[in-house]
Amino acid sequence: MTAVAGVDIGGTKISAGLVGRDGTLGRTVTVPTPAAEGPGAVLAAAADAVRRLDGPVAAVGVGSAGVVDPVAGVIVSATDALPGWAGTDLRGGLRELLGVPVAVENDVHAHALGEAWTGAAAGERTVLLVAVGTGIGGSLLAGGAVHHGARNVAGHVGHLAAPAAAGRPCTCGGAGHVEAVASGPALLAAYRRHGGDPSAAGLHTVAELAREGDALAAGILAEGAAALGEVLGGLANVLDPDAVLIGGGVSACGDVWWRPLRAAFAAALLPPLRPLGLTAARLGPSAAVIGAARLGWAELGERPDEVNAPSLSGGSAVSR
Amino acid sequence: MTAVAGVDIGGTKISAGLVGRDGTLGRTVTVPTPAAEGPGAVLAAAADAVRRLDGPVAAVGVGSAGVVDPVAGVIVSATDALPGWAGTDLRGGLRELLGVPVAVENDVHAHALGEAWTGAAAGERTVLLVAVGTGIGGSLLAGGAVHHGARNVAGHVGHLAAPAAAGRPCTCGGAGHVEAVASGPALLAAYRRHGGDPSAAGLHTVAELAREGDALAAGILAEGAAALGEVLGGLANVLDPDAVLIGGGVSACGDVWWRPLRAAFAAALLPPLRPLGLTAARLGPSAAVIGAARLGWAELGERPDEVNAPSLSGGSAVSR
Repeated sequence: MTAVAGVDIGGTKISAGLVGRDGTLGRTVTVPTPAAEGPGAVLAAAADAVRRLDGPVAAVGVGSAGVVDPVAGVIVSATDALPGWAGTDLRGGLRELLGVPVAVENDVHAHALGEAWTGAAAGERTVLLVAVGTGIGGSLLAGGAVHHGARNVAGHVGHLAAPAAAGRPCTCGGAGHVEAVASGPALLAAYRRHGGDPSAAGLHTVAELAREGDALAAGILAEGAAALGEVLGGLANVLDPDAVLIGGGVSACGDVWWRPLRAAFAAALLPPLRPLGLTAARLGPSAAVIGAARLGWAELGERPDEVNAPSLSGGSAVSR
Repeated sequence: MTAVAGVDIGGTKISAGLVGRDGTLGRTVTVPTPAAEGPGAVLAAAADAVRRLDGPVAAVGVGSAGVVDPVAGVIVSATDALPGWAGTDLRGGLRELLGVPVAVENDVHAHALGEAWTGAAAGERTVLLVAVGTGIGGSLLAGGAVHHGARNVAGHVGHLAAPAAAGRPCTCGGAGHVEAVASGPALLAAYRRHGGDPSAAGLHTVAELAREGDALAAGILAEGAAALGEVLGGLANVLDPDAVLIGGGVSACGDVWWRPLRAAFAAALLPPLRPLGLTAARLGPSAAVIGAARLGWAELGERPDEVNAPSLSGGSAVSR
């Protein structure tokens, strides 16, 4: 009757969920992140969310915003969305509050682990997940495990050079990166810059206009999508993944965005990679909770690789 | 008194060398590749080169041109430089001819393994090697092991999108890839296209002119190097490597090429990656022999990770 809690800590909310040995998500709890009150309050709120799941929690897996050192269990750096979060002993703090083993990971990596467990890339070993939203983040799974890189900052797909972004300033302080032309804010800014309806409330409206046949809106989305598709095709030539998953808010724009994305991606691929397509991420907001829980199960001695495989001992499904 | 033979099979020559447990290269033999005589002749020539090392060879590691399946031990595909090579059972064939365990790998991956053993990235875990020559190839080591990808074609760094290559046809049949502007032939073609001395025999001559102050030659090299540096900086943002090594014939062009390469690379990096530089590969033509031998040692039960570590049993150095 064991379960694991997966926790997703973001700048505005904390989600927790009970996740079974087979990756099935049970009860979930979502609370606001008390970011302004500091790291202690955030840890307490996360622990409280886990307690409110009221389940037989034997371990906890956490995906957090920011750069995470999964070996030390601490936050290496974070944005202003979580003041003081850098330096927090996320694993030690939660272990003390909850009294169970805790595994920690970056939230985008947790998202990828979730999708490769029960989502759009279930069972795949080499997976590139790209989240296209306010920024463009990503995660690479190699042999089923997260590729963290030397400083735990691997995955910054948005900061690849893009032909369509030449000279354009990027949020990172550099220039010419694909995020500067293909993120949600970049698409909205381009729409306005080219004389689009200034009252368009957000990218959602631009996408709606594009679907209704507005040529400017459709053209802007197509240009941004094509810029991203070309860059991802080149990255696939380097990484040779089993699957490339696309998630994030911008991916909800529909066919007006996906069609040019897929066309540009396909055109950039080397011949042996041509069967590779782009797949929509499937687990939505629960992905990081589920992926983090996978790491919690690993803390209990379940190898993530094996969690999804038929159980030799049989019938060890958990209560959900 | 055990040694391992490393073998590097290319389209024009086959090199073999005795490599000790600590990665030291001993006697080497190089023979022409009888490519036109077919795969059987190539296997026989490789086996003969190993025999001529006349050493206590307990295992063989082979790095070969082409796409290699290291698990099955076979060649997946190859260029016309090795007719009929695709489908060759490289491991099985050499094992039969030599009677010892054989490990096989792609030659660029073997190069990276060598550099990460005793070369410019000795002991590093996450290494990106980029070989800039007739084409632009590469290899990623993650956690010290080769990242093969799903189809064993990972590493095609030359087929990343490059702003400076927009619209330019690439050798792969696509367009806009960095190889189209930064490979050796691309640099030479650009020099000639822009009115350079048509009698310039090769890139070597262009580099010499650049070092002597020829503005056109220097400008062409700088543009190609900057295009590559920008793309590699973006790739480093995704991979977060411990080290990025540059090898291949073009890297012999000197400072006229390295300076703009390094500047563009540095300008593209995210803040946490800024300490990362570009390092010249160090083992030269022996790199793949040494890296392949590392896999041969692994066949004997030596974990590649541990081969370079102090031996607990002590004093097991081999004859060289």
